[in-house]
Amino acid sequence: MEAIKPRSPESQVLSGYIMSTLFYEPSTRTRLSFESAMTRLGGTVLSTESAGEFSSAAKGESLEDTIRTIEGYADCIVLRHFQAGAAKKAAAAASVPILNAGDGPGQHPTQALLDMYTIQREVGRLDNIRIGLVGDLANGRTVRSLAFLLSMYDNVKMYFVSPDIVRMKDDIKGFLTSKNVDWEEVDDLSQVTADVDVLYQTRIQKERFADRPDDYEKARGKYIIDNQTLKLLRKDAVIMHPLPRVDEIKPEVDSDPRAAYFRQAKNGLYIRMALLKLSLLDRSVTGV
Amino acid sequence: MEAIKPRSPESQVLSGYIMSTLFYEPSTRTRLSFESAMTRLGGTVLSTESAGEFSSAAKGESLEDTIRTIEGYADCIVLRHFQAGAAKKAAAAASVPILNAGDGPGQHPTQALLDMYTIQREVGRLDNIRIGLVGDLANGRTVRSLAFLLSMYDNVKMYFVSPDIVRMKDDIKGFLTSKNVDWEEVDDLSQVTADVDVLYQTRIQKERFADRPDDYEKARGKYIIDNQTLKLLRKDAVIMHPLPRVDEIKPEVDSDPRAAYFRQAKNGLYIRMALLKLSLLDRSVTGV
Amino acid sequence: MEAIKPRSPESQVLSGYIMSTLFYEPSTRTRLSFESAMTRLGGTVLSTESAGEFSSAAKGESLEDTIRTIEGYADCIVLRHFQAGAAKKAAAAASVPILNAGDGPGQHPTQALLDMYTIQREVGRLDNIRIGLVGDLANGRTVRSLAFLLSMYDNVKMYFVSPDIVRMKDDIKGFLTSKNVDWEEVDDLSQVTADVDVLYQTRIQKERFADRPDDYEKARGKYIIDNQTLKLLRKDAVIMHPLPRVDEIKPEVDSDPRAAYFRQAKNGLYIRMALLKLSLLDRSVTGV
Repeated sequence: MEAIKPRSPESQVLSGYIMSTLFYEPSTRTRLSFESAMTRLGGTVLSTESAGEFSSAAKGESLEDTIRTIEGYADCIVLRHFQAGAAKKAAAAASVPILNAGDGPGQHPTQALLDMYTIQREVGRLDNIRIGLVGDLANGRTVRSLAFLLSMYDNVKMYFVSPDIVRMKDDIKGFLTSKNVDWEEVDDLSQVTADVDVLYQTRIQKERFADRPDDYEKARGKYIIDNQTLKLLRKDAVIMHPLPRVDEIKPEVDSDPRAAYFRQAKNGLYIRMALLKLSLLDRSVTGV
Repeated sequence: MEAIKPRSPESQVLSGYIMSTLFYEPSTRTRLSFESAMTRLGGTVLSTESAGEFSSAAKGESLEDTIRTIEGYADCIVLRHFQAGAAKKAAAAASVPILNAGDGPGQHPTQALLDMYTIQREVGRLDNIRIGLVGDLANGRTVRSLAFLLSMYDNVKMYFVSPDIVRMKDDIKGFLTSKNVDWEEVDDLSQVTADVDVLYQTRIQKERFADRPDDYEKARGKYIIDNQTLKLLRKDAVIMHPLPRVDEIKPEVDSDPRAAYFRQAKNGLYIRMALLKLSLLDRSVTGV
Repeated sequence: MEAIKPRSPESQVLSGYIMSTLFYEPSTRTRLSFESAMTRLGGTVLSTESAGEFSSAAKGESLEDTIRTIEGYADCIVLRHFQAGAAKKAAAAASVPILNAGDGPGQHPTQALLDMYTIQREVGRLDNIRIGLVGDLANGRTVRSLAFLLSMYDNVKMYFVSPDIVRMKDDIKGFLTSKNVDWEEVDDLSQVTADVDVLYQTRIQKERFADRPDDYEKARGKYIIDNQTLKLLRKDAVIMHPLPRVDEIKPEVDSDPRAAYFRQAKNGLYIRMALLKLSLLDRSVTGV
C-alpha cells in the first residue's frame, strides 16, 4: 500500500497575499472561480456576496469609499457591480489592483479572455477561425466581447445566428466592417453548422419576447443544439457556451467530445490564476 | 515565561485540497462544521450559503450543470439541497466526491453517523442499547435515520415517544419488525425515562398542530426534559438532541454530565473530518 | 530582473487557529477587517454574515446554544448582534474567547480602541487633547465610547457639536463632569474648528428628524466638513470619521493630509490583530 500524502498545491506563489471579492450582485460561478484561483496559488480570500444589499452601501457609502476601506484589508479586490463603468471608477480610487468580474451591461473581461483561451486550446489557433455566434446577440455581453477580440486576428469569419429581435447590434457590426472582418447574419443554425470551427451558443431570455410569445416558441427550435446538430458539425469543431445554460443545448450533447463548455468553465480558473499572479506579483517586483 | 508558539494544527493531510460548500438552503451549523473539519485537516474552503437563491439556479441551470462547473474549482463538494435525491443526482454527474449535507426530506447521513458515533463514545457500545426516541418522529429526519442504523446492531430496544399526530411512520416500523428489532410506542416520556440508556430528544414544530392548537399545548408538557426527568434517568444514561432546541430540553439540564448534546454537536466535526479524509485521500491513492 | 518571490506574511503566530465570525446583522467593513486580521496572523476563518436571518436562530435557538455549538468548531468567535448585552451573554456561555464586534445600541469596543489608537498615532498623544465630536452625538455609539475612554487621560477638552435634537446624552455629560473633564456644547462647527487637535465627524441620520424635516436641512450645513473647514483647521490637526460617510465630509477634503479617516479604518486591522493575538495566545500559554 502506498503512503498517503497531502496533495502538492499548484503553487504557493501568492502565499501571504489576500484577495477580497466584492460582489454587488451575486454570481456564484464567477466568485468561486476567482476564489479557487487565489487559493490554488497559495493566497487567501475574504469573501462577500451581494455586498450591495448590505450595510455600508445601504447607508449611502460611495463605491470609492468602500474601495478605499477594503484596500486596507486586502491586497487586491475582485469587483462585480451592476453599473457599467464601476470597475473603472473603483480602479481610479484604489491603490491596489481591481479585477473586473463584470460591471453590469459594461464589460466582463475575464470571461472574454477565457473564451479566447478556450478557442486557442481547443482549436489550436485564433487566426483562420470560422465561428458561429448563436442566440441572444443583442444583450449577450460575452458574444459582443468575443466578436471584438477576435477582430484582432487574421482571416476570421463570423456568423451571427439569432432571431431578428436580438440581433448583433450595429456598433459591433460597424466596427467589424471597419476592420475588414468578414461577418454574415443568418437566420437558422443549420445553415452554418457544417462550416464552423466553433459554435458559440448563448441563452435566449424569454423576457426579450414579452410582446410576442408566439415568436419565442417559433424562434427557439432553430437555435437549439442537439444530436441533429452533432451530425452536421465537423469532427474537429467545438461547441462553447458561457453557462449557465437552460435548454439551448440538450443534455444528450454533453457526452460528445466536441462539447467544450465545461472545459471552458474550468479554463476560467486558469485565466484568473494568471491574472492574479500578474496583478499581484508585478506590483511587488516594481514596488508600486 | 514560556515562549508563545503557534498552535500545531490537528493535521495537514488535506493541504492543497479545496472543498466547496454548495448550500441550496441555509444550515449554518452543518456548513460551519464541514468547513471547520476541512480547515482542521489543512485544506481550504470555498463557501456558499443559499446558493439556490442566487444566480445560476435562478436562471434555470440544472443541478448537474452546477456540479460540473463547481468541480472545476474544487476537489470535493458538500451539498445541501431541498429536494430528496439531490445528492444522488449530483454524485452521478460529478467526477469529484459529493458529500450529502442533507437533501430535504431525504437523508442527512453525516448527522446519522455522528449520532451513532456519539452513542458509541458516550455509552461505550451500540449493541444492547435501550433508546427512547422522543418528539416529532414523523417528520424528524434524524430519528428515522437513527432507527434505521441501530437496526443493524444486536438486541436494541426502541421506544417511540410522541404525540399521536407525529408518530413514527409505518415504513420504519415495518422495517424494524422485519428485522426483529424490539420497538414499542409510548405516549408519555416518564414511562420510559428510568429504563433507557439514551434519551434522544427532538423538536416538535408547532406548525404540525395547526388544526388543533389545544392538542399542541396539552402534548408539549409530556415530552419536555427537565430536572424531573433527570431524577428518573439512570446515572449512566445520556441525553442527546440534534439541535437546535427550543424549549423541549430546559436549560437547567445543560450542566448535568448526562446532557450530551453539545458534545454530540462537536462529534459532527470529527465525523466530517473522517469523511473528508476518506473521500479525498482514497481517491488520490487509487488515482480515480 | 528580480526573482519573483511570495510575499512574506505579517506573521504565522495564529497558524492552526480558527476564528468564526457570527454576524446577526450585516457589517461588511467590520467583518472583513476581523477576517483580514486573522488571516494576516496565519489563522483561518469560518465566515457567516446575517446568521440571524438563517437557520438555527430562525428556528428559535438561543444565543447561548448557538455559541456552545460554534465553539466546537472554532477557537474564538467574533460576534455582531443587534441586542445590547449579547456579547456579555455569549461570553458567559462560552469556553472560547468572544470578541464583541458591536452589540446593537450597546458597545462597539474594537471601534473605540481603533479610534484611540488613531489619535495616539496621528496626534502623538492622548493627554492634552482638544477634540470636537460632531454630528449625531445622541445615537452615535462611537462618540459615546470615545468620550468615555478619553476621560481617562489628563487635560482633555471636548466640544460637543450637534443639532439640539441629537445632543450628547446626560449620562456621558454627568460622567465627564464627575471626572472633572472639561466639556462644552456648541451649536456650530466653525466656532471650534480652529481650536481642536481632532475633528471627529459622524453621520446624522435623516430619520432622526422625521418630525421636522425643515430643521434637518437647516441643521446639516452647519456640520459639514469641506474646503472652508480645512482653511480654519490647524495644520497639525486631523479629521476622523468612523465611516461610512454620506455627505458630511465632502470628497474635496479626502486628498488633504489631515484627512485621517481611511488611515483610521486601516488601524482597525492592527487593533483586531492585536486583540486576536492576545485572546488566543494568552489562553494557550496559561492553558485556560
